[in-house]
Amino acid sequence: MTYQELEALKTVKDLRSAIRAGEFAGHTAGLAPGKLQCNIAILPADHALDFLRFCLRNPKPCPIVGIGETGDPALPTLGPDIDIRHDLPRYRLYRDGHFESEVTDIAHHWRDDMVTVALGCSFTFERALMAADIPMRHVQQNRTVPMYRTALPLEPGGVFGGTMVVSMRPLPQQDVARAVEISARYPLAHGAPVHLGDPAAIGIADIDRPEWGEAVSVAPDEVPVFWACGVTSQNALLAAAIPLVITHAPGHMLISDINEDAEHPIWKP
Amino acid sequence: MTYQELEALKTVKDLRSAIRAGEFAGHTAGLAPGKLQCNIAILPADHALDFLRFCLRNPKPCPIVGIGETGDPALPTLGPDIDIRHDLPRYRLYRDGHFESEVTDIAHHWRDDMVTVALGCSFTFERALMAADIPMRHVQQNRTVPMYRTALPLEPGGVFGGTMVVSMRPLPQQDVARAVEISARYPLAHGAPVHLGDPAAIGIADIDRPEWGEAVSVAPDEVPVFWACGVTSQNALLAAAIPLVITHAPGHMLISDINEDAEHPIWKP
Repeated sequence: MTYQELEALKTVKDLRSAIRAGEFAGHTAGLAPGKLQCNIAILPADHALDFLRFCLRNPKPCPIVGIGETGDPALPTLGPDIDIRHDLPRYRLYRDGHFESEVTDIAHHWRDDMVTVALGCSFTFERALMAADIPMRHVQQNRTVPMYRTALPLEPGGVFGGTMVVSMRPLPQQDVARAVEISARYPLAHGAPVHLGDPAAIGIADIDRPEWGEAVSVAPDEVPVFWACGVTSQNALLAAAIPLVITHAPGHMLISDINEDAEHPIWKP
Repeated sequence: MTYQELEALKTVKDLRSAIRAGEFAGHTAGLAPGKLQCNIAILPADHALDFLRFCLRNPKPCPIVGIGETGDPALPTLGPDIDIRHDLPRYRLYRDGHFESEVTDIAHHWRDDMVTVALGCSFTFERALMAADIPMRHVQQNRTVPMYRTALPLEPGGVFGGTMVVSMRPLPQQDVARAVEISARYPLAHGAPVHLGDPAAIGIADIDRPEWGEAVSVAPDEVPVFWACGVTSQNALLAAAIPLVITHAPGHMLISDINEDAEHPIWKP
């Protein structure tokens, strides 16, 4: 199934069914417009309390929007029929802090001590910005948004800590204030930017060399605008070198039934 | 130390020091205006992950504003020097779901498997409403706000569940919309009301017989306005009959260093 065929599917349920059936394993940007998409981290229960601590203390990069029961692949507060073992287009497995493989289904890796945590995602505020005629350079250039390690310290939580990862979008000066105001409306999707302007001020040595994603051009009259990024949590999970972590592959998110402008991410029948 | 003497203390640090020293064991309503006050639940780590699930899935009654490390009585994201063993004016201990005692210090009850969870509190939006000249009847009548069990179902989380507890404040019809709008600005303090009007519609049989607090008069031209209440979490903890739970005594809250209008409840030096 192509992205275009998937895009034509009407409901979130149809979309997740196609992904679950293995008919689509591409990125989810732009699919199910208006529905909250989620970063996913699946980890052993032994580390789940610490990971929640870490996320709760760092709500800009790690806004918790859902959590599963131990050993249960459902996420009933995010949608009626979610099975996290199949419902992401693509997953990454890490053992002891090292990348092991990228797969399209994790049924064979699921264990009865696994806990799923869902975090908000930048697709939400990007869609709101584009709807307000604020263009996204990486979308225009068909690239993955550039992401950078920073010197911004995180609040530690148990074994998790480190510094924040940010994504960058260059904006014309006249759009910056509006972009701040609009993105601030989505605290479950990283909210307002964490920094505007000089990359060096937050410890980014070279704006043209992102650590994840791809560089995009910044025009002389544009301001680089930095938002807290969900990769922060993946980074912290890897640095802690816990035995097994499964995440979404970048850009291959969980599509939930939650409306992006919901007051709280709690699905009701 | 009287409430009036305590009120004259300038800083949150002074206030917490006086409480820690046992010089004050009264309620904290109105103290340290502008600072976030918190409901507190202290429970064994074995049940902490489930309790966080429950709170995360029920953010209106149970808005998480802080969590401690296992066995550590500090809450560094809520203030620089908090020791939860001493810093509440008054605590309640429950064993196996039954009230055991009310004390002013829990140093002798602290264990190295205890986890502290802090939840937002209605004092925050009440202060904002009163600042906007919307009077609070229970304050005028010098009573504890009336609280009721409802039929509103909670999202279960592990062993925790049940129905929502609400508090009620009668408002003149012309103030209702403004009260909704103002309280909605404080999602970390229960946010907008969960119900307006007919108590029976949410399963309250008799508005004059609250289950906690004291009844207040509702004039014929007034609307009873119901907000989600932090007692919901205490109720769920008791119903689950876990071996040991320590909470604040009603109205005897933790005074944090967080500004009530902070975007996130993360204290920075």
